[in-house]
Amino acid sequence: MIRAGVVGATGYTGVELLRLLLSHPQAQPVVVTSRGNAGEPLAAMFPNLRGHTDLTFTEPDAGRLADCDVVFFATPHGVAHGLAGELLSRGTRVIDLSADFRLRDPELWARWYGQPHGAPELLDAAVYGLPEINRASIPKARLIAVPGCYPTAVILGFIPLLEQGLVDTGRLVADAKSGVSGAGRKAQVGTLLCEASETFKAYGVPGHRHLPEILQTLAQVAGAQPGLTFVPHLLPMIRGIHATLYATLSDPGTDVQALYETRYRDEPFVDVMPAGSHPETRSVRGTNRCRLAVHRPQDGDTVVVLSVIDNLVKGASGQAIQNLNLMFGLAETTGLDGIAVLP
Amino acid sequence: MIRAGVVGATGYTGVELLRLLLSHPQAQPVVVTSRGNAGEPLAAMFPNLRGHTDLTFTEPDAGRLADCDVVFFATPHGVAHGLAGELLSRGTRVIDLSADFRLRDPELWARWYGQPHGAPELLDAAVYGLPEINRASIPKARLIAVPGCYPTAVILGFIPLLEQGLVDTGRLVADAKSGVSGAGRKAQVGTLLCEASETFKAYGVPGHRHLPEILQTLAQVAGAQPGLTFVPHLLPMIRGIHATLYATLSDPGTDVQALYETRYRDEPFVDVMPAGSHPETRSVRGTNRCRLAVHRPQDGDTVVVLSVIDNLVKGASGQAIQNLNLMFGLAETTGLDGIAVLP
Amino acid sequence: MIRAGVVGATGYTGVELLRLLLSHPQAQPVVVTSRGNAGEPLAAMFPNLRGHTDLTFTEPDAGRLADCDVVFFATPHGVAHGLAGELLSRGTRVIDLSADFRLRDPELWARWYGQPHGAPELLDAAVYGLPEINRASIPKARLIAVPGCYPTAVILGFIPLLEQGLVDTGRLVADAKSGVSGAGRKAQVGTLLCEASETFKAYGVPGHRHLPEILQTLAQVAGAQPGLTFVPHLLPMIRGIHATLYATLSDPGTDVQALYETRYRDEPFVDVMPAGSHPETRSVRGTNRCRLAVHRPQDGDTVVVLSVIDNLVKGASGQAIQNLNLMFGLAETTGLDGIAVLP
Amino acid sequence: MIRAGVVGATGYTGVELLRLLLSHPQAQPVVVTSRGNAGEPLAAMFPNLRGHTDLTFTEPDAGRLADCDVVFFATPHGVAHGLAGELLSRGTRVIDLSADFRLRDPELWARWYGQPHGAPELLDAAVYGLPEINRASIPKARLIAVPGCYPTAVILGFIPLLEQGLVDTGRLVADAKSGVSGAGRKAQVGTLLCEASETFKAYGVPGHRHLPEILQTLAQVAGAQPGLTFVPHLLPMIRGIHATLYATLSDPGTDVQALYETRYRDEPFVDVMPAGSHPETRSVRGTNRCRLAVHRPQDGDTVVVLSVIDNLVKGASGQAIQNLNLMFGLAETTGLDGIAVLP
Repeated sequence: MIRAGVVGATGYTGVELLRLLLSHPQAQPVVVTSRGNAGEPLAAMFPNLRGHTDLTFTEPDAGRLADCDVVFFATPHGVAHGLAGELLSRGTRVIDLSADFRLRDPELWARWYGQPHGAPELLDAAVYGLPEINRASIPKARLIAVPGCYPTAVILGFIPLLEQGLVDTGRLVADAKSGVSGAGRKAQVGTLLCEASETFKAYGVPGHRHLPEILQTLAQVAGAQPGLTFVPHLLPMIRGIHATLYATLSDPGTDVQALYETRYRDEPFVDVMPAGSHPETRSVRGTNRCRLAVHRPQDGDTVVVLSVIDNLVKGASGQAIQNLNLMFGLAETTGLDGIAVLP
Repeated sequence: MIRAGVVGATGYTGVELLRLLLSHPQAQPVVVTSRGNAGEPLAAMFPNLRGHTDLTFTEPDAGRLADCDVVFFATPHGVAHGLAGELLSRGTRVIDLSADFRLRDPELWARWYGQPHGAPELLDAAVYGLPEINRASIPKARLIAVPGCYPTAVILGFIPLLEQGLVDTGRLVADAKSGVSGAGRKAQVGTLLCEASETFKAYGVPGHRHLPEILQTLAQVAGAQPGLTFVPHLLPMIRGIHATLYATLSDPGTDVQALYETRYRDEPFVDVMPAGSHPETRSVRGTNRCRLAVHRPQDGDTVVVLSVIDNLVKGASGQAIQNLNLMFGLAETTGLDGIAVLP
Repeated sequence: MIRAGVVGATGYTGVELLRLLLSHPQAQPVVVTSRGNAGEPLAAMFPNLRGHTDLTFTEPDAGRLADCDVVFFATPHGVAHGLAGELLSRGTRVIDLSADFRLRDPELWARWYGQPHGAPELLDAAVYGLPEINRASIPKARLIAVPGCYPTAVILGFIPLLEQGLVDTGRLVADAKSGVSGAGRKAQVGTLLCEASETFKAYGVPGHRHLPEILQTLAQVAGAQPGLTFVPHLLPMIRGIHATLYATLSDPGTDVQALYETRYRDEPFVDVMPAGSHPETRSVRGTNRCRLAVHRPQDGDTVVVLSVIDNLVKGASGQAIQNLNLMFGLAETTGLDGIAVLP
Repeated sequence: MIRAGVVGATGYTGVELLRLLLSHPQAQPVVVTSRGNAGEPLAAMFPNLRGHTDLTFTEPDAGRLADCDVVFFATPHGVAHGLAGELLSRGTRVIDLSADFRLRDPELWARWYGQPHGAPELLDAAVYGLPEINRASIPKARLIAVPGCYPTAVILGFIPLLEQGLVDTGRLVADAKSGVSGAGRKAQVGTLLCEASETFKAYGVPGHRHLPEILQTLAQVAGAQPGLTFVPHLLPMIRGIHATLYATLSDPGTDVQALYETRYRDEPFVDVMPAGSHPETRSVRGTNRCRLAVHRPQDGDTVVVLSVIDNLVKGASGQAIQNLNLMFGLAETTGLDGIAVLP
């Protein structure tokens, strides 16, 4: 059994990671830390875990964490900067669900996150954990930066078009919608049920932290810097991201359906739906899948890609487990084969 | 008091129209018809009306309807085709909330609605009841085609840019999201709470009936046929439309905030929010307002317009009352000054 | 116009009170205070008020408040204790939406609210503002304690049975369910959308602060101390209370339907529905009505009363306006005749 | 592998049963029938099953079904009456999720279900599949009547009190609340999102079909016919039942917490929570657990029991699998060890 530590498991990515680890046949959580809740049983905070674990939260302690085979960070940004180096130096692998190691450029990180980068020396070692483009690098990686939720949905939707250079990369649009769990388990007015249900709005239109992350990866995929307008919105529901992507085809003769099916034929977690489909977020709820549909309305040169994921699974904790499986030589789908609960 | 008839008041635009009429100081419903529910008190079907009216549904009868000053149709498409002519010939004005008289071209109508147009001879008389562009024509109109819900949100959002020729009209994008009430009060599986809550999806990407309606009006505004990609989505909530619009500025020096403020300065129901805003659908719930915000992310040449309305009010029954007020010489806001209930 | 002040208008009862005052034909808000938000326009905090008022929050100042004809408190408990005395001594009437003056016994108050009562000397002057039992006392009152939300729904449901001594008062059960807005607009984890939607639970079963308030008033109505089991629950929705009440008839021959219809025949805001009905909370959303239905399942001796209100209107701000109307000699329904928005 | 057939798998208990069977290590669905959808892939109707099964719906055919080891009925009432006999006679076991074999008395069944009982000769063979009271009979049973959702939650909550004769059985109250999925996947207006969200109501107060089922089983448990007032309510959410139960203790010295803990100590799917708890329906969503808490408010003689289940799992398909496990000699929890997805 792989011995896993989890730092900062009191948020929504944390509890989802614990659910997945507790169901995983070849890994188990052995240390779960929380500065504010040390001594409290996990099951007291998260009632779904009652009966499935007797673990209690402990103070974060580098020594105990270093005894693990791998440590996950499900922490606010900046925390992994402080601890990851020590763990890596002791031989413990790190899978970071925060944004700390996602951007290659520490200056860019500092600009978007409003504080200096705390561990620029580790950036060379960090692998951006999107297996659909970086699968080869993950097994030998010691430090994984798990992609953000919006970036996962948007990038998976654009990859086939950009890899092949089939669209005008100067005018991409990503209109993305996320359930409220993306905002985290924090005491704040804006995500109260009374504020966020029965209503809908955009946010962060002037600029959202996931924009540079998406741009960096799309540039890698396209081989050139793209131009992207990214508009996130808040959905009145708990889980799920739906990205609606718009691009203009260079060659109107392109068979986009075949393009997507070919690109993702062997991907265990990317499902290209039949032509004419409209994927629903609930079809992937609680699972690590991304479902995609690709359209050309009125047979024009605009391609519309519909991309859905569960923001807490393929957009966070499930993708972290997918990386774990690759890092430790397990089948990539181990512990990730659950069926979405519907309705 | 203006005597109003309502044909087909058993749907959501119907009950909303009744709510507005029963609160209107200078109009009142006197005949409310429903083929399937004749004899039933309105308040038995719609519990919010209990204590506010003793009316019962009656069979649709042209004679009784013709005694009204005005008759509203809140019916499936095709019904107003059959009855409007007779009412008009007897001097009764008609305000049609269905799609029957929205498209100027009966062939186009037939193609999108799957049946022949039933009253092409009335099309010349019909006025598209969007006061923000057709205010001058409405007072003398005998037949009003109330705009669709998506068209209202999308068109109001694009008007300032298109009127002034400030954007590339060949590549407009309207990513629109609607509450479930837009699908009507019909017994169907797809809009059950268990199917439509806690999930989100696009629909009608290959083509939606509101597309030709939007294109027709944008062409009138722009003076040329635009190219538009229109993608509707279903929100897990009851009321509200949010349209997120994308266009490319021809002149990057344009002050879009001033443009919008100037265009809508005197409009009683269009509210241009301060720069940097993100309007929420709940801020207009139950009201006839459209709130707009206009952005240029990262000061680029892409304009993003956020437009919210209540699909059943400004997108249907409230706009119908606004037309009524203009047709009968009342202040345009009469009976439409309620404040949204929040939370 | 009656000049009204509102202390602490940043919560949900506050914004609902502002909505009702801004729509009231004979009253208007002139001073609205908030310690933390002084200087901010009301409409910036509450987007539904945009376009309806230019007022800004001010620091609470006894002098400016004393210039009002009436001051409403929509504050946490304890605040009205500190300010009400000064206002009353200057001749300003006070309508307190908090719990500060609801319990006649200051010791009981101290026990349930965990702090000493701050103004026991004012208790003799306070009138419990439930017009359905205290209508005669309200016009001359200077200080009104607006009933709590659960108490309003429960008491109105029990009154006819208890006034007439028709049930065993030793074993009353009130199983009550409230929308999340009852928990207020506070930054807290428990009422986040992700915590409170798609789930349901009881809370406060060992004891809830509304229990002594209900018992005090039921004792007044029944003429003796009743025994009540009161279990509140949290509904995954914004507004509405549904109380399901159980009692055992002393005389199985009682015609409970006639009893309720007779008792409430002249009450403008209590609607006894036809036999066999099941009132829905949405039928009163945004309105000051209480709808009741009374059942005797299988014609047994158990009476089941179903009572619904909007917790923020009849359960708080609407009832406050109803008291205002009575205090200032206006028609009791003034400004309270809106129709619920449905769906 | 146990070969399972499913008759009528197009509803919500059907899809939940398929999810559980497809995840079960020792059973698999081999025939899935639907009269109206024969030929359609399961995954086309239920998008969560896409990628997990290639099965298509077939016409119900007794021959093919009889080849199975066990056949589940997830059908409207009356259907199993017609088919079960033939399957049993051919040696196939039957697990019926409908109400067809729950009531021992065919006359009583006919009265509540409005049609004659279609297979009274099979009633002697039928076992009421609530393992917590009938575990010994299930392994050798050929025909299981899976309990209804409300009955499961209510009966499990009352068992300890009634088995020991500790309460007045003449005046039991069960105030029960269910998510909308309990109403099934049928095209009907009453359970549309626009009708059933943001509102709450009771229904069936004069009499609900689950009442005789509950009474029959409580009588078995108590050894005498109890008196019960049962009031169901509709929650604005998808899944979950919360039953709030009220009873009067005969002996005020009873330690109810110890009573419940002792009674359920060895039950794998009944979790008695610590004293003072308030179980949430989401804590059991998608799982086969029932969580219970027991209270005595103000240390009085009224016991309040809080009982939560997932109506589609422990209240239907999960309990069916639990019966399957017992019938085929598997560990009772096989395939039922998933953790609830939270949030």
